[in-house]
Amino acid sequence: MPLSTPALLVHSAGQAFARGTVQRRDVGPSDVLIDIAFAGICHSDIHQAREEWGRAIFPMVPGHEIAGIVREVGSGVTKYAVGDRVGIGCFVDSCRECENCLAGEEQFCLRGNVATYNGRAYDGTDTYGGYSTQIVADESYVLRIPEGIPLDAAAPLLCAGITTYSPLRHWGAGPGKRVAVIGMGGLGHMGVQIAHAMGAHVTVLSRTLAKEAEGRALGADAYHATEDATTFASLRNRFDLIINTVSADIPVDRYLSTLRLDGALVFVGLPENPQTFRVFSLTGARRSIAGSNIGGIRETQEMLDFCAEHGIASVIETIGADEVTDAYDRVVRGDVRYRFVIDTATIPEAA
Amino acid sequence: MPLSTPALLVHSAGQAFARGTVQRRDVGPSDVLIDIAFAGICHSDIHQAREEWGRAIFPMVPGHEIAGIVREVGSGVTKYAVGDRVGIGCFVDSCRECENCLAGEEQFCLRGNVATYNGRAYDGTDTYGGYSTQIVADESYVLRIPEGIPLDAAAPLLCAGITTYSPLRHWGAGPGKRVAVIGMGGLGHMGVQIAHAMGAHVTVLSRTLAKEAEGRALGADAYHATEDATTFASLRNRFDLIINTVSADIPVDRYLSTLRLDGALVFVGLPENPQTFRVFSLTGARRSIAGSNIGGIRETQEMLDFCAEHGIASVIETIGADEVTDAYDRVVRGDVRYRFVIDTATIPEAA
Repeated sequence: MPLSTPALLVHSAGQAFARGTVQRRDVGPSDVLIDIAFAGICHSDIHQAREEWGRAIFPMVPGHEIAGIVREVGSGVTKYAVGDRVGIGCFVDSCRECENCLAGEEQFCLRGNVATYNGRAYDGTDTYGGYSTQIVADESYVLRIPEGIPLDAAAPLLCAGITTYSPLRHWGAGPGKRVAVIGMGGLGHMGVQIAHAMGAHVTVLSRTLAKEAEGRALGADAYHATEDATTFASLRNRFDLIINTVSADIPVDRYLSTLRLDGALVFVGLPENPQTFRVFSLTGARRSIAGSNIGGIRETQEMLDFCAEHGIASVIETIGADEVTDAYDRVVRGDVRYRFVIDTATIPEAA
Repeated sequence: MPLSTPALLVHSAGQAFARGTVQRRDVGPSDVLIDIAFAGICHSDIHQAREEWGRAIFPMVPGHEIAGIVREVGSGVTKYAVGDRVGIGCFVDSCRECENCLAGEEQFCLRGNVATYNGRAYDGTDTYGGYSTQIVADESYVLRIPEGIPLDAAAPLLCAGITTYSPLRHWGAGPGKRVAVIGMGGLGHMGVQIAHAMGAHVTVLSRTLAKEAEGRALGADAYHATEDATTFASLRNRFDLIINTVSADIPVDRYLSTLRLDGALVFVGLPENPQTFRVFSLTGARRSIAGSNIGGIRETQEMLDFCAEHGIASVIETIGADEVTDAYDRVVRGDVRYRFVIDTATIPEAA
């Protein structure tokens, strides 16, 4: 019989969070039941809870940066055992048949994968995310969190970590490469750490120098304020790769001018407005503008293992259930260093 | 003593061509003197002769698709001998020291290479192009035209050929890859032939189906009219690579929707206006928008050899000096199949 699990719900767009319960499905043969310990707050949670990205499904339980412990496994489960430290990211199922799924790139499933929340499973049931105490998911879409990473600091890796790791890997960040990260927020502070651990020379491009000391402590070799009029001219033909983590409009041509031959400007933030560029900015050095979106299951596991090996995790501020509504406003204001993580023990009424 | 050579000159922006002469430099130790046989008319000649791409140098002798025969070689020349069939493309010198020159990508010389015309040599002298009977150039920037290609049909390869060959090679066109070419003009008809010869599946995306039979004869496997409202929907997630040869504004997002995972939309035409795109169009399948600009000397030679091996050349319409002014208007109207080539024997007054 279905499990009723405490959760934080948004009942309509932009409303405050309320305690309640959602039903989780029975643990099927390939499913694991996870006791959620921590759930990160991603900026995309806010966009969806406020219905800023098109029609959303309410009530909504956001949360796709989930870390916890396996409580129960289905009869056919082979990857996990009770007590394992595990995580769930942005999707909990995909078609498993399309060319992208077969290539291990389930984030680009051609049928459309099943979002961890604000989604519909292929059987038509709504999905609910990690601001909750338990979740049931197919083992194939569950990640193993290595022992070296505390569960709270691991949670944001499931989205912020893989969102930056994947393009850094795909575009070849490593020794001899110069990588810039635009923005020092939830995504940016992960990008800096991961690019540094990959051996690249890392530059932060932030609006101001306010976070320079922290950026350098996380691994940045250089730090520039984009509001400084001389910055772009001084960086011409500098970078092999720029990861843009901000969701605001950016002056694309100015950033392109800082790329070397064959350099790429990769968007991982999602600005609402169309962006503009001049074709000359590309043809002048065979530059490209690209976009990357989280990563596949195999690569997400690789990222977690990489982070454990290199001692990397998210820098977090842990909050209780009562603080989540306010935390959303603080994320929008950029007032968090660098990721809020909800302690799900505070979610049940009794807490 | 400097050589005075007959040429077609534009004396100020947008004026008709007039016969005249220009001076070529003495043949230095590393120079070759070439008797020009044919010069192609590139759309960029028109932009420059009409001063549509910013300040230009007048009088101007356009022409960077040059094919001819070596008449004289300098004392230190080792690559060429009198009588050799040779060509010159878009540039005649580069710094030879920057990282891009050292990588054989002189088209992206960081000092700025020396344009074949409407440029200034590093010694400050103006450069004059191929609408002329003779030219002097450093042997390092001269290409060998293989025996298999007639000189007239070879001339456009020096720009239109390499402009399409280089991105097809760089982005991996070949067996198992689906390539689309936007536009069936001077560049597009080369792109179709080259992509086909590389073994790719080739689709032409043209405004109408008017040139379908010709496109298929040149190697296209499919041909779609972009003015047909159903075209884009029917081509979703289809292509690995799109080469955009048109200089007009394009609906970038619609083209991006036709790219598969990791597909690239590569501009080789140069629209004047900024282009716009939605970031979601990129992140949905890790797509990219890129730009490519001709090719380096080594790759241009590779392209000429490839074309000879595969029996590829430009489809041309040969004209005399008196027809050049009108030909410009015809190119702008798209009224040429597919490249005008000037027979330089008609340039001297006596002709």
